[in-house]
Amino acid sequence: MSRQSNRTTDSKKMNAELFTLTYGALVTQLCKDYENDEEVNKQLDKMGYNIGVRLIEDFLARSSVGRCQDFRETADVIAKVAFKMYLGITPSVTNWSPAGDEFSLIMESNPLVDFVELPDNHSSLVYSNLLCGVLRGALEMVQMAVDVKFSQDTLRGDNVTEIRMKFIKRIEENLPAGDE
Amino acid sequence: MSRQSNRTTDSKKMNAELFTLTYGALVTQLCKDYENDEEVNKQLDKMGYNIGVRLIEDFLARSSVGRCQDFRETADVIAKVAFKMYLGITPSVTNWSPAGDEFSLIMESNPLVDFVELPDNHSSLVYSNLLCGVLRGALEMVQMAVDVKFSQDTLRGDNVTEIRMKFIKRIEENLPAGDE
Repeated sequence: MSRQSNRTTDSKKMNAELFTLTYGALVTQLCKDYENDEEVNKQLDKMGYNIGVRLIEDFLARSSVGRCQDFRETADVIAKVAFKMYLGITPSVTNWSPAGDEFSLIMESNPLVDFVELPDNHSSLVYSNLLCGVLRGALEMVQMAVDVKFSQDTLRGDNVTEIRMKFIKRIEENLPAGDE
Repeated sequence: MSRQSNRTTDSKKMNAELFTLTYGALVTQLCKDYENDEEVNKQLDKMGYNIGVRLIEDFLARSSVGRCQDFRETADVIAKVAFKMYLGITPSVTNWSPAGDEFSLIMESNPLVDFVELPDNHSSLVYSNLLCGVLRGALEMVQMAVDVKFSQDTLRGDNVTEIRMKFIKRIEENLPAGDE
């Protein structure tokens, strides 16, 4: 499905429940389609990536956020603006690495899992892995390569859900061919 | 995925775009999985039905809407409360049949298709068909059998999107076995 060029950016606020259940239908479908949880996790990450590279444009238009000065500012924008805008929650930013290249987003509650319990035979499923892909894809479009993964998950019995983000490198913008 | 019994009903308002793109990923996945558009439409309706039978509980808890006196009241609640709550839009209720058993929900814009153009090889795809299933499933849980289908769709070049709803019958609540 390709993007319409003339879509509007008017804001339609909605409750999360229909999204939550629709996401559940997507994960259930992928569990039918793929052999094992690892494949499903990979697929969710890939889908999320494709969503992220498109969502970033909407985000920049809607938020009027400019280029971040450093990874700390990026972390704050993700938590306080992006998560708030698209998931209705504001995770806390914590557990910075001494070098300042890694942090965690801690979600007290994760709207994606509001109706969910993992069945026993899907113990390796990273149910919300789409979010990691979204973050990876969106940040790549603003020239940041990051590694994103879940390190805690309430679905697996942890008290909170934690997404760990690691800065890898700044991506050089490609020069047009022949432009030297 | 089964429902958690202890989930909260706190309201998380979010913008529609992440939902819109995630829904697109679901439809794209189904288009890969199934042979033709008719099968995809059927699958979307079925998924929607399963979502509707769960969403109704959340809706009743959140909206404090009581039992509707007639189909006209049902139509108004769907348009003004349910669509507003879960999709952030309020369709207009029109085109009543003389007998009062059919009406249309007209959406000037459909948040599900904000980023979408149908490829030529999916001319029979009813992209948003999940919504029909959601309505059918949710109403069945409040003892109303309805027929729901798209009769206009901006994705197919129509000026508006129109969902046609037809009342079929009131479903008798089952008496417990042996209770006579």
